[in-house]
Amino acid sequence: MSAPQEAAPVTVDVAANPEPKGEEAEEVFYDDDGNKISKKAYKKLQAKKEKEAKKQERAAKEAAEKAVREASEVDYSTEYYGKKPMNQSQERTGRVRTAIKDITADMAGQTILIRARVQHSRPTGAKMCFFLLRHQYSTVQALLMADKERVSKKMLKFAVGIPNESIVLVEAMVNKAPEPIRSCTVQDVELHILSLFVESEAAPQLPFSIEDASRPDTEYEKEDNQFSRVNLDTRLNNRVIDLRTITGQAIFRIQSGICELFREFLTKNRFVEIHSPKILGAASESGASVFKINYFKTFAYLAQSPQFYKQMAICADYDRVFEIAPVFRAEDSNTHRHMTEFVGLDLEMAFEEHYHEVVELLGELFVFIFDGLNERYAREIAVVNRQHPFEPLKYLPKTLHLTYPEGVAMLRESGYEIGDFDDLSTEAERRLGRLVKEKYNTDFYILDKFPLSVRPFYTMPDPNMPGYSNSYDFFIRGEEIMSGAQRIHDADYLKQRVAEHGVDPASVEPYVNAFKYGTPPHAGGGIGLERVLMLFLSLGNIRKASLFPRDPKRLEP
Amino acid sequence: MSAPQEAAPVTVDVAANPEPKGEEAEEVFYDDDGNKISKKAYKKLQAKKEKEAKKQERAAKEAAEKAVREASEVDYSTEYYGKKPMNQSQERTGRVRTAIKDITADMAGQTILIRARVQHSRPTGAKMCFFLLRHQYSTVQALLMADKERVSKKMLKFAVGIPNESIVLVEAMVNKAPEPIRSCTVQDVELHILSLFVESEAAPQLPFSIEDASRPDTEYEKEDNQFSRVNLDTRLNNRVIDLRTITGQAIFRIQSGICELFREFLTKNRFVEIHSPKILGAASESGASVFKINYFKTFAYLAQSPQFYKQMAICADYDRVFEIAPVFRAEDSNTHRHMTEFVGLDLEMAFEEHYHEVVELLGELFVFIFDGLNERYAREIAVVNRQHPFEPLKYLPKTLHLTYPEGVAMLRESGYEIGDFDDLSTEAERRLGRLVKEKYNTDFYILDKFPLSVRPFYTMPDPNMPGYSNSYDFFIRGEEIMSGAQRIHDADYLKQRVAEHGVDPASVEPYVNAFKYGTPPHAGGGIGLERVLMLFLSLGNIRKASLFPRDPKRLEP
Repeated sequence: MSAPQEAAPVTVDVAANPEPKGEEAEEVFYDDDGNKISKKAYKKLQAKKEKEAKKQERAAKEAAEKAVREASEVDYSTEYYGKKPMNQSQERTGRVRTAIKDITADMAGQTILIRARVQHSRPTGAKMCFFLLRHQYSTVQALLMADKERVSKKMLKFAVGIPNESIVLVEAMVNKAPEPIRSCTVQDVELHILSLFVESEAAPQLPFSIEDASRPDTEYEKEDNQFSRVNLDTRLNNRVIDLRTITGQAIFRIQSGICELFREFLTKNRFVEIHSPKILGAASESGASVFKINYFKTFAYLAQSPQFYKQMAICADYDRVFEIAPVFRAEDSNTHRHMTEFVGLDLEMAFEEHYHEVVELLGELFVFIFDGLNERYAREIAVVNRQHPFEPLKYLPKTLHLTYPEGVAMLRESGYEIGDFDDLSTEAERRLGRLVKEKYNTDFYILDKFPLSVRPFYTMPDPNMPGYSNSYDFFIRGEEIMSGAQRIHDADYLKQRVAEHGVDPASVEPYVNAFKYGTPPHAGGGIGLERVLMLFLSLGNIRKASLFPRDPKRLEP
Repeated sequence: MSAPQEAAPVTVDVAANPEPKGEEAEEVFYDDDGNKISKKAYKKLQAKKEKEAKKQERAAKEAAEKAVREASEVDYSTEYYGKKPMNQSQERTGRVRTAIKDITADMAGQTILIRARVQHSRPTGAKMCFFLLRHQYSTVQALLMADKERVSKKMLKFAVGIPNESIVLVEAMVNKAPEPIRSCTVQDVELHILSLFVESEAAPQLPFSIEDASRPDTEYEKEDNQFSRVNLDTRLNNRVIDLRTITGQAIFRIQSGICELFREFLTKNRFVEIHSPKILGAASESGASVFKINYFKTFAYLAQSPQFYKQMAICADYDRVFEIAPVFRAEDSNTHRHMTEFVGLDLEMAFEEHYHEVVELLGELFVFIFDGLNERYAREIAVVNRQHPFEPLKYLPKTLHLTYPEGVAMLRESGYEIGDFDDLSTEAERRLGRLVKEKYNTDFYILDKFPLSVRPFYTMPDPNMPGYSNSYDFFIRGEEIMSGAQRIHDADYLKQRVAEHGVDPASVEPYVNAFKYGTPPHAGGGIGLERVLMLFLSLGNIRKASLFPRDPKRLEP
């Protein structure tokens, strides 16, 4: 029943009993459906109708009175709550705001202004409501209490009705919490709300709650588990909410840390950052897994890596270069570790005598990154670990460096069959990772000297071991995170290898030509940013390590 | 005359005087052409012939003896010169090498090992050859002198024949230069070459010489100029050689400096680096200038900016984000300042009250970048200035901030006709840049409050000035380098603007939906890296500011 809107005059409906026509007509009675009924029944019906009408009249009158009363009642809180108009930069007061993370018990007694999301609210009785206010990693409890002076019941009702995830601007008194508030990051403070304005209102229904999306994996493994997981697709479809969880906040800060550490190490080692084109005139590396673009009246292709261009920077005397940029792979692989677009951390380096100069530097680079993450992002790593428990990465100060034949021997010794020159399957990589962990107690190692036949045409053959090459992969927890090699820097020999690989010479002509005018020997590698992130944190799926992942089936959001 | 190859037996040719036939025939004499001549003349001819024959015989004998002597002669230099086999990482001696930039006169008397390119060589007489050796920015003079002990003439001949731009490994004695060598960066040292090996040989013919590609613009302006410029297309077609010039080395170090300073400032100001997808499910911003990709069984599009995604990171509580990544524009613009792919320095920031919080931060960001370049890249800037002289950028410690109506007023005052809500043409931008420079003595300024109608649908209208918006461009030397605005953060209002702009709602649905669950007000901007570089250095063409530029007509190298 909807609430009465207006107190309308109540009348008894008599239309169902038309006036008797003509003279002394026999007195006939009808019910509301027009059926003949007895006089007694009719009177009873009339009495009932009048009773109902009076009841309605009374209700309407009360409603009207209430409306008048409420309309005339002075809401003494109006200036302390409400919805702000959309911010169009109407004003700039410069009033200081406090971040939740900076609130401490020392501020007790102070009035502060904060912007936060309402993670949830919980009314208690008719006069009180608790709020969990959140900003990024930080949460604080706030309390709104109706009183006779500042906080009206209307204000309380408004506050209770604010949808979760709305952004509010709160003025509050800082109070010491009587006992630690375990559910918040700010545990020794409770805020007493003085004013409360909605800056940006969330839709009333969320695709999932922040609590559900933040629950530790261990909760689901309990016997009495009553929760169902928010599945990955739901998360990704509603990525902006998923990323608001503290784990979502942590993962991409760690990601940005990897890039920062990568650059820091390389810059210190005299590398120069470059930016190479992603639109290419020819499908250079492998025609099969390249995206084709309509390019004005012709076609072009998306770069599968900056390989050719970082090498050309070496031809151009830049000697040591790196690039952080998207790479594109048109592989219809729907696995936990493939995406069609990912971020490549690429580097290339001229060496003096031997490509192991580069391999060693790469080993140091990763140790620098791992150390740096553990030092600078300890809090974020702990946050991820709380939701998705994992073993911290084991790695050695000087990275373990095995050769391919050594790896093959270890696999065989464990009973795994593999030919000398076979490529490593995903299964073999995993198994070798476990064997290495057992034997050397490291999750991170280098496998050097891959068979020449499983590497690209520009890979330099090993001068001493026929069938092998000066190329290497780096592994974390049994999965490849970097591939690299010494490259062929001699134009004539490169041409020969192009022919031997059946690559169309026209498609690589500008690349091969770059080596015609003298090039130092060089080596390098390409690191998959999301793979490093996924494997460092044992996230289990690469999509969790990409802000807005792309795979053969996902192009949105 | 070619040198005699072999000592052939010498015979006097008498065929021209056949033996007289029959008996007592009259003695008749002929010259070589069969003409009758006198006996005296004949004898004279014969004598001359014999003399010549003997001379030839002598020469041939001498040549033969020399050949025999040379063939048996021990080349006492063989271990000091030659071509190295292709480096396949055959060995690792760990022998210390010295960089040219680190060579000083203090090292006089020391033997050093360096790797360098032969920029050119100049033989002087039969016994000496000067070399200009180069590595990146640094050059040094080296001298090879034939002697009786170490440097044979064969070694000298080999050295003289090394094509320019070949990479050599040189062992040399450091000598103090008798007088400063003005043509080199290392001016107080001359190297005396002890051994010389070619590590990577350049093709004998270069597309252009490093000297030609390095010549200052001022040289061409001289009256007696005899050089012709290496034109831009030739440079770009042979980019790896062009980039070896000191200007080519300087420009992209400055470019990398801009990125470094951009990140440094933003990281200090609590921004987080993100990586957003470049492959999009819908042509979101403007269908006309977007590249279409074949994406498995469907189509996708290349991102024209990270606009939607950096805003979605704000929806996800990241508050302050930046990204450095390629952006793609399918505009068929063949101008000095358009490319189809460039590097976007993007940022987005939630603000508390007013978008001017963001505008001010952006102003500070640029001042930080300009100051940082002038401090950290002074040498590189000087290098560019030497080849392409330019006025150093003028900018104010607190960036000039004009409104659009103020800009329009200045233009009109100067006699330029423009409507209140007209967009700025390239010409108007340039003109306004000159007017601003005259009036405020700055090459860099902010123009705020652009007409709403010339900005994208997601731009926040100004709350007070109808027809204007909370949007801004930043200019260097009268050209736009950054565009930005406060964005609409309210999903319902955004929907309304989508409709008003005639944008297909389906194409922006995931974007609009991101705002449904509460979003703080925010603003940001997108900076064109190559534009900043081009305009800071007054390079005149954006292609010079891109390592491997892409335009509608250039997809290679």
